[in-house]
Amino acid sequence: MEQDLLTWLNGRTFHHACVTLGIGDDAAILAPRPGFETIVTTDMLMDRVDFLWGTHDPALIGRKCLAVNLSDLAAMAAKPFAAFVSLALPRSMSFEDAQRLMQGILELAKEFQVELAGGDTNTHDGPLVVNVVAMGETPHGRAWLRSGAKPGDRLVVTGPLGGSLKAKQFSFSPRVREALQWRELAEVHAAIDISDGFCLDLSRLLSASGCGALVREVDIPISDDAFAMSSAGSGKTPLEHALGDGEDFELILALPPSVARILIDHAQHNGLQVRDVGVVTQSNEILLTKASGEVEPLPAIGYLHRLST
Amino acid sequence: MEQDLLTWLNGRTFHHACVTLGIGDDAAILAPRPGFETIVTTDMLMDRVDFLWGTHDPALIGRKCLAVNLSDLAAMAAKPFAAFVSLALPRSMSFEDAQRLMQGILELAKEFQVELAGGDTNTHDGPLVVNVVAMGETPHGRAWLRSGAKPGDRLVVTGPLGGSLKAKQFSFSPRVREALQWRELAEVHAAIDISDGFCLDLSRLLSASGCGALVREVDIPISDDAFAMSSAGSGKTPLEHALGDGEDFELILALPPSVARILIDHAQHNGLQVRDVGVVTQSNEILLTKASGEVEPLPAIGYLHRLST
Repeated sequence: MEQDLLTWLNGRTFHHACVTLGIGDDAAILAPRPGFETIVTTDMLMDRVDFLWGTHDPALIGRKCLAVNLSDLAAMAAKPFAAFVSLALPRSMSFEDAQRLMQGILELAKEFQVELAGGDTNTHDGPLVVNVVAMGETPHGRAWLRSGAKPGDRLVVTGPLGGSLKAKQFSFSPRVREALQWRELAEVHAAIDISDGFCLDLSRLLSASGCGALVREVDIPISDDAFAMSSAGSGKTPLEHALGDGEDFELILALPPSVARILIDHAQHNGLQVRDVGVVTQSNEILLTKASGEVEPLPAIGYLHRLST
Repeated sequence: MEQDLLTWLNGRTFHHACVTLGIGDDAAILAPRPGFETIVTTDMLMDRVDFLWGTHDPALIGRKCLAVNLSDLAAMAAKPFAAFVSLALPRSMSFEDAQRLMQGILELAKEFQVELAGGDTNTHDGPLVVNVVAMGETPHGRAWLRSGAKPGDRLVVTGPLGGSLKAKQFSFSPRVREALQWRELAEVHAAIDISDGFCLDLSRLLSASGCGALVREVDIPISDDAFAMSSAGSGKTPLEHALGDGEDFELILALPPSVARILIDHAQHNGLQVRDVGVVTQSNEILLTKASGEVEPLPAIGYLHRLST
C-alpha cells in the first residue's frame, strides 16, 4: 500500500518556492528566506482520541490532522509553507480510505499553499495514528508568543466557542489568513489557539506571561452548537461548553486597548465575530465577572489529555 | 503523565543556537543561518514493527527512534540541530518507562548537539508509536541527493552489513560526523543510508540517478552478526544477510574514483571499514559479479514495509 500511496501522491501536492526538494529523497531541503524565521509545530492525532475511524469521513480526518497544525502556526502569526505527514495505518485499511485520508490533507494544504514535502507511511496492528509537522515563516522577531501579554492588554477571541464536537472539530478554518492580516495591522502582544478549551488555553497564555486576567462572562462568544448540545441534554450550560469544550481553534489574543479596537473593527468589517472578553491584570488570578456582577475564579476546566509543545 | 513528562524534560535538553524558542509555546522558532539550507526528515516507528516493547530496553527504543532520523540527515550530509518527538503512549505504560524512552532520545540528541525543540505527547488504547522529525543544515547547494550518481562513479559502503537484528538496529551510530568530514574532503555525487537493505537502497539511489551498477560480490562487507545469524540457522547465507537485511544505517556513496580513494584512505586512517563495492554504469541494470566470475542481476531483496520520503 505504501508504494501505491506514494505513486498516487506524485504530482498532487502544491509546490512552494521555499521547498527546494520535496518528497522522494532521504530528507527534504528547504530554503528559508533571508530575514525570516522558521516556525515548526507538530501534532499527533489518533483513532478513538481525536476522531473515530469508521464513523467520521476519512477526508475530514485527514483535513483535521493538518488543520490543527495550521492553527498552531496561526497562533504564532506564521505563514505556512510545508508539511510532513507520518502515518501508522491499520493493516485492514483499504487503499481507497488511505487515499481519501490523504486527499483531505492535500486539499487543505492546497488551500493554504502548503507543500507536502515528506513523510513516512507504515502499516501496523493498531489504530490509525497520524503525525503532522507544519512549518511556516515569520519576518524575524515578529512571531506571536504566549509570553508577551501585559497588564492592561485586552483579551480578544476570534469566534464563537463551544460545541465543536458536533462539527467544528472537523470543519474549522485555521485562522491563518486572519493572523497574517492582523500581524500587519496591529501590535499583538501574545496569542494562543484554543485546542483544549478557552479556560485552559487562556491560563496557559497568562501563565507564560506571568499575568492574571478579569474575564466578563457576558462577553464570552457562545456558538450555536454549544446551545444545541446543551438543549439536547449534554448536562452542561452553553457557557460551560464555551469555556471548556476545546477544539474551537479560535485564537485568544492579548493586545493594547487601542489596537484591540482596530482589530475588532477590521474583523467585523470582514464578517468575523471577534470579541473583547476581558483584560489582562497584574495579579496571578484569572477571575470571571458573572452576569450577576459577582466575581469568582474562572473555572479550571478543559481537555487535559494532549500536551502539545 | 504528559504534564509530568514535560516537567521532567524541562532543562534536560541540549540547547542549540539555531533554536530561538524551544518547547513550551504553540510552535518552535528556528533561526536558520544565512547561506544554509534546512534539511528535514521524519520517521515513525512503532511497536511490533520497529521494536518490541517489553523485550527491548525503552532507552534503546528511544535512541533508535532518533538515530534513524539522524541517519537520514547523514545521508544528506546535513548537520543536525533540532528534533521534534511525538508520542502515542499505551495507557498501560509506566511513567518510568516513558522517562527511559525519552532518556534514550535525549542522550543521543546531546551526543549530536541536537535540541529537542518540541513534540506532542499523547496516550491511547494502542501500541507505542513514536514519530521523530529531525532537522539539520547544509551550506546552500551542498546537500547530497540520491539523484547525482554518474556513470564511472565508484560505489562505496561505510561499514559491514547484515545481521542488524541482533544488535546494530539499536546500537548503530548514525554516520553524521563522517558525512560532515567527507562533505568537506571530497565531492560526493550521491548518497543514501541503508535502512531497508543494501540491494533495495542501492536500487533507489540508482533509480533516482537514472543509472545502473556493477557490484562485486567479494567486496560486499559482511558483518560478524551476519555470519553469526547464518551459523545459527537463519536459513540465509552471510552474504544474503548483508545484501538484504536492512537497518545497517551505513551509507552508500557514489563518487568519482580519485575521490573514492581519498575517502577510503581517510576512513581507514580513522579506523572505519569503508569499502569500494562497485561502479555506477550507464545501463539501467544492477548487476552482481559473483565470486565465481559469473555476472547476474543483483537480487531484488530488502525490507519493503516502510517507505520513508
